[in-house]
Amino acid sequence: MNAPHQPAKLELADVVAALRETAEQRDREGGHAAREKQLIADAGLLTIAVPREYGGEGARWPDVYETIRAIARVDSALAHLLGFTCLQVVSVTVWGNEAQRERYLRGTVENRWWWGNAVNPLDTRLIAHATGDGGYCLSGQKGFCSGTRGSQMMTLSAHDPATGKPIFAVVPTTRAGITVHEDWDPIGQRQTDSGSVSFDDVELRAEEVLHRSEVLPAPRATLRTLVSQLVLTNLFVGIAEGALQEAREYVAQHGRPWIHSNVANAADDPYQLHRFAEMRLKAIGAEALATRAAHALDQAWQRGDALEAEERARVALSVAEAKVLAHRAALDVSEALFDACGARSTHAPRALDRFWRNARVHTLHDPLDYKLRDIGRFAISGALPEPNLYS
Amino acid sequence: MNAPHQPAKLELADVVAALRETAEQRDREGGHAAREKQLIADAGLLTIAVPREYGGEGARWPDVYETIRAIARVDSALAHLLGFTCLQVVSVTVWGNEAQRERYLRGTVENRWWWGNAVNPLDTRLIAHATGDGGYCLSGQKGFCSGTRGSQMMTLSAHDPATGKPIFAVVPTTRAGITVHEDWDPIGQRQTDSGSVSFDDVELRAEEVLHRSEVLPAPRATLRTLVSQLVLTNLFVGIAEGALQEAREYVAQHGRPWIHSNVANAADDPYQLHRFAEMRLKAIGAEALATRAAHALDQAWQRGDALEAEERARVALSVAEAKVLAHRAALDVSEALFDACGARSTHAPRALDRFWRNARVHTLHDPLDYKLRDIGRFAISGALPEPNLYS
Amino acid sequence: MNAPHQPAKLELADVVAALRETAEQRDREGGHAAREKQLIADAGLLTIAVPREYGGEGARWPDVYETIRAIARVDSALAHLLGFTCLQVVSVTVWGNEAQRERYLRGTVENRWWWGNAVNPLDTRLIAHATGDGGYCLSGQKGFCSGTRGSQMMTLSAHDPATGKPIFAVVPTTRAGITVHEDWDPIGQRQTDSGSVSFDDVELRAEEVLHRSEVLPAPRATLRTLVSQLVLTNLFVGIAEGALQEAREYVAQHGRPWIHSNVANAADDPYQLHRFAEMRLKAIGAEALATRAAHALDQAWQRGDALEAEERARVALSVAEAKVLAHRAALDVSEALFDACGARSTHAPRALDRFWRNARVHTLHDPLDYKLRDIGRFAISGALPEPNLYS
Amino acid sequence: MNAPHQPAKLELADVVAALRETAEQRDREGGHAAREKQLIADAGLLTIAVPREYGGEGARWPDVYETIRAIARVDSALAHLLGFTCLQVVSVTVWGNEAQRERYLRGTVENRWWWGNAVNPLDTRLIAHATGDGGYCLSGQKGFCSGTRGSQMMTLSAHDPATGKPIFAVVPTTRAGITVHEDWDPIGQRQTDSGSVSFDDVELRAEEVLHRSEVLPAPRATLRTLVSQLVLTNLFVGIAEGALQEAREYVAQHGRPWIHSNVANAADDPYQLHRFAEMRLKAIGAEALATRAAHALDQAWQRGDALEAEERARVALSVAEAKVLAHRAALDVSEALFDACGARSTHAPRALDRFWRNARVHTLHDPLDYKLRDIGRFAISGALPEPNLYS
Repeated sequence: MNAPHQPAKLELADVVAALRETAEQRDREGGHAAREKQLIADAGLLTIAVPREYGGEGARWPDVYETIRAIARVDSALAHLLGFTCLQVVSVTVWGNEAQRERYLRGTVENRWWWGNAVNPLDTRLIAHATGDGGYCLSGQKGFCSGTRGSQMMTLSAHDPATGKPIFAVVPTTRAGITVHEDWDPIGQRQTDSGSVSFDDVELRAEEVLHRSEVLPAPRATLRTLVSQLVLTNLFVGIAEGALQEAREYVAQHGRPWIHSNVANAADDPYQLHRFAEMRLKAIGAEALATRAAHALDQAWQRGDALEAEERARVALSVAEAKVLAHRAALDVSEALFDACGARSTHAPRALDRFWRNARVHTLHDPLDYKLRDIGRFAISGALPEPNLYS
Repeated sequence: MNAPHQPAKLELADVVAALRETAEQRDREGGHAAREKQLIADAGLLTIAVPREYGGEGARWPDVYETIRAIARVDSALAHLLGFTCLQVVSVTVWGNEAQRERYLRGTVENRWWWGNAVNPLDTRLIAHATGDGGYCLSGQKGFCSGTRGSQMMTLSAHDPATGKPIFAVVPTTRAGITVHEDWDPIGQRQTDSGSVSFDDVELRAEEVLHRSEVLPAPRATLRTLVSQLVLTNLFVGIAEGALQEAREYVAQHGRPWIHSNVANAADDPYQLHRFAEMRLKAIGAEALATRAAHALDQAWQRGDALEAEERARVALSVAEAKVLAHRAALDVSEALFDACGARSTHAPRALDRFWRNARVHTLHDPLDYKLRDIGRFAISGALPEPNLYS
Repeated sequence: MNAPHQPAKLELADVVAALRETAEQRDREGGHAAREKQLIADAGLLTIAVPREYGGEGARWPDVYETIRAIARVDSALAHLLGFTCLQVVSVTVWGNEAQRERYLRGTVENRWWWGNAVNPLDTRLIAHATGDGGYCLSGQKGFCSGTRGSQMMTLSAHDPATGKPIFAVVPTTRAGITVHEDWDPIGQRQTDSGSVSFDDVELRAEEVLHRSEVLPAPRATLRTLVSQLVLTNLFVGIAEGALQEAREYVAQHGRPWIHSNVANAADDPYQLHRFAEMRLKAIGAEALATRAAHALDQAWQRGDALEAEERARVALSVAEAKVLAHRAALDVSEALFDACGARSTHAPRALDRFWRNARVHTLHDPLDYKLRDIGRFAISGALPEPNLYS
Repeated sequence: MNAPHQPAKLELADVVAALRETAEQRDREGGHAAREKQLIADAGLLTIAVPREYGGEGARWPDVYETIRAIARVDSALAHLLGFTCLQVVSVTVWGNEAQRERYLRGTVENRWWWGNAVNPLDTRLIAHATGDGGYCLSGQKGFCSGTRGSQMMTLSAHDPATGKPIFAVVPTTRAGITVHEDWDPIGQRQTDSGSVSFDDVELRAEEVLHRSEVLPAPRATLRTLVSQLVLTNLFVGIAEGALQEAREYVAQHGRPWIHSNVANAADDPYQLHRFAEMRLKAIGAEALATRAAHALDQAWQRGDALEAEERARVALSVAEAKVLAHRAALDVSEALFDACGARSTHAPRALDRFWRNARVHTLHDPLDYKLRDIGRFAISGALPEPNLYS
């Protein structure tokens, strides 16, 4: 990262420490983490993915994901919020025109905007009626709108009945007619502000419309999906790493050897050693592929408009591979955490199950089965994944 | 089971249905399930393990465990309570003298007593001072006292400083000086009433003292531990079966095929089919070994005082084997449940994660590693497990 | 089993011991085990599945499979030969008419026939031209004809171009025009005599034709496929049990603790104990389901013509479940055998890899994926497997 | 790699193709691959690890291991031979003095020496009696002497009874009194020339003695063990990659969809796609960690004598982690190869089981359990591995 922002980098550890301190309580309460989102904004982290020409940090992708992962180790919900603000920055970067980039990217830097996301492509209930001036009137609902609550800006997709295709746009979250519902109550990832949003005759101006689906997207524009999938991947890796860290600390503080183990310290139990080895191997195997995918994405990103479909597809394959290992690592390590720590670690106020619950919710974003199918197609025949809503 | 109790058998389905109806809400609230415990008592289930000569049902072990499993499919916390009342009945049966059996077993039948358990052998904070008349004065604490809250009778172990050994006894839970704390707040198995209990100069009468540890226990008496381990095993099997059942019902009602699956119904997705197959195989593999172990236990139990150490040890091996498979089945199936059901199934009010949380808490009762070590010793050298606190 | 045949039962151990003694060498050489097949015949084992009314032992299915498994522990190729002779006995029993049963079943008892199998349904190269008198003229090839080399009788299927359907029949292996090729050279199961057979204008008499495919088979007739699948299942279980037994014996004789293990005996290494535990759990989990399926098959078999489709389908499910666990147990235990025994155990003349190679070849008989699909269909929707060539 | 050697690099593909062509037959025959070893020597590959100052290629470690892996994909036995010649080059580099490096390293370049290895530290039967002039007289035996048959030079360790410690030295394989036995007959890795060697009053000159154990080895010298462990790791990765490649080619050429699959091509079977995905994930997960470890080793190697113990230990950890994943990948992918290819692929002349047999033999070099223990110690407490014979 570039020199002027080094202070922000330094503050990351403080942000992480602050999030860690309240993670159990906020997991229990759910809802909106206004104070913690402010901390992240204050640390300057909302602009890490904004290109330097618009005043952002323009961090390389491996650095962006390392930042997201560092937060995910202690709080994967807030890491998701940061990751998805980065994703909307990318949406504007690849789908917007120059004026939109100037307005929204520089605006993010100047105003420390959190971005929400109402782009869920499987939810087609939001309708956009063209108003004849290049703008639209929006009505309907959108679900799973991560980050929208408490955001200043949001991206959205809506169905245009005249063309039968979706439109994509940016609106301020406070625009008249938009209601952000406080209806996000899941078993994990409880503070991702992913409730539903209603649109009641909302004005969408011509200059807010980003990308028209009738144009076949260039390979570079489809990198957006890979940025998104790699956010998820790094959340999973962070959860695995965080769960391992918690297990290590718990055993160091509270570990007692089993009565039949014939060892003096819990950390010398031969089976504990194997368990921790397996936990670590899961985590680092996933991290290694995630890091490799981040470098591949970065290389493709640097290619700009010259990026070709095949290189993009190779990045997609690399991301899919990393995601499978990360998905499994997050679930397995967060479950094994308890075998490592023992019966007393299940006391609810400790909320050590939040790692598993967070992993379990977020790994359902899109099914692993079809990532595996993509990987299998390449492995069996060399066919690379086609760009789609999740790849 | 014998004819006069057939009505109770019929009511089991009603009990299960009633427990199922409130399971999500009670999981969320935790605490004490007074109404549901009353239902179980009303169905006559508290006496299934009481020998017929004391008026009980005297059910064979495979039937007892099938009953516990049926409840565990919908509510493994209340199944645990029933299982542990059966366990205290066994404690009295094998550790008590004839007068104690008459008093406590017949008392269970006549008064529908729920039993608590303050026998946790790893907790040595409860002290028993001999009073000279064969009785003791009890002072101290005991943790993880499953079932004690809301019980009428309880068993306990306490440390006798004069002999350096534990004593075992029965007391009414309402005895003066006993305080049952409402401090059980775990991530799962939330209604097992397993809080701590304080004893403040509590009178323990000579006729309440069950079994003196200075006497080397006969093989039959040590079956108590196996009864206990097989309760746990069947809870795990029930959790696995229940999670599979929930998954099946959820997919039938809410399942939607993935957009890239090219199938019309979620139930035809080839990967869903494999997932359900693996879930089922986990569950039935565990159930098969649990059923086999229940028959082995039953055969040993029928041998009475003629039971020899080796036959007892073979039952212990069989129970250990079943427990490992059941432990893994419970965790794996309850995790896979979500892959089967998808992202929307993580809505907190559904509490579908209760299967995993229940499994996760209860599988930490005693570490799997040392069950595996016992099995390994037999597999490598033919050495059978010795009776101990957990085997 | 019935009293008069108890001597044969006694001799099983001798047969097993004799097969064990030469197993490594015969694995290396492959080809035909004439001497060992004679031993099995001399022990009276060829008639265990022949109903008593035809002079056979009429053993119950659990006993038949226990016999096959006992042999498979030391030699899964010869166990397969015995299993498939039993299978042809079943073919005659369920597909034949009374005269055929009398001729072929009593013939098996009186002449100690080994039976070959040219019924591979995926190989349609053998053509049967009707000769007008109810018989056929056979020409063509058949592959994977297990047991045919060295057999006295064989079953076959052939394609009737006039009807477009297969016919099934019995012929003596020595019938003019039949050539049994010595072309079976696989990596495992090397002595199953499963080469190809050529038919050159072979006479097939009307009374040799068993079952006409135009008749929809009754549930009982379709049990044949399940008998076959359960033979495979028990071979796999036997391989797992045999590999575990070899590992135990090798470690007892040659095991040395690893230099960094800090234990005096290999059998005390904590990781060896876990390894043996996992090996055992694999083996007994599979055995438990295989035994359960054998009882289910036996019950259905006893129902005779009254057997209904649903009960038959439940047996099919049970067999499929057992087969999956047995398949995995055979591969996993035979691979882990080497981790248990260490580097020196790879000396080729010991041929300890024969367990894995035998498992690997035989588990490919029909793909596990589609057994899992059948199980998954039941688990997700309650749909039972339809009878087909492999279920 | 440096420009002048690019021709050799080009020839690697030819070497690989030539080895592939005869791999099945040579696996069957075992013994010594004189012709193929000549090909490797002719391609200049024996000097890739020789530093440039001695005329070698001085390739970076990631490149050395990539070369070894490329060969291991088709022939892991010959890849082992090359890897162990590189290892002896390293032995001379880190244990030798300047004169020895000049003599043996430049000699390797000028004479294209293959090196054997009689350093097996667990075999203490070879005795070195000091002759008073700095040299020794060698008598005794050494087992598992990889590469010795057909080599020109060899390293050895021997027990010096005067000091109770081992000595290390170089001798020409043709030195009088040395007999290389042709007794290597394992189930896999059949052409690694790893038989035993007898020494009958063999002269060892003072200038041939490499490293005296009384000197505590510097961190750099202990890198030798890590070079060795990473050779093994890359053999395993190569086996996994090679097995996957074979599976892909076999399915493309011979694959047939299963009759109940409802797909037209084997490569479209949904379960095949998942299988290939899992095979690939195993292979690339292992490769990613192996590549990372190679870079870590290279960095440490470049540090020369300035290398400190902690950095060395971090490399050791990285190597251990890679080895675990590679070990498992090699076994799992080579077993799954057959599920991918089906029953016909078990025809012995194809020798497709050589991947599993090669993996199975070589993964027993030293037990995985204790690599896992090292990793677990770090994961649980941050303790890094100490240098020892296998780490």
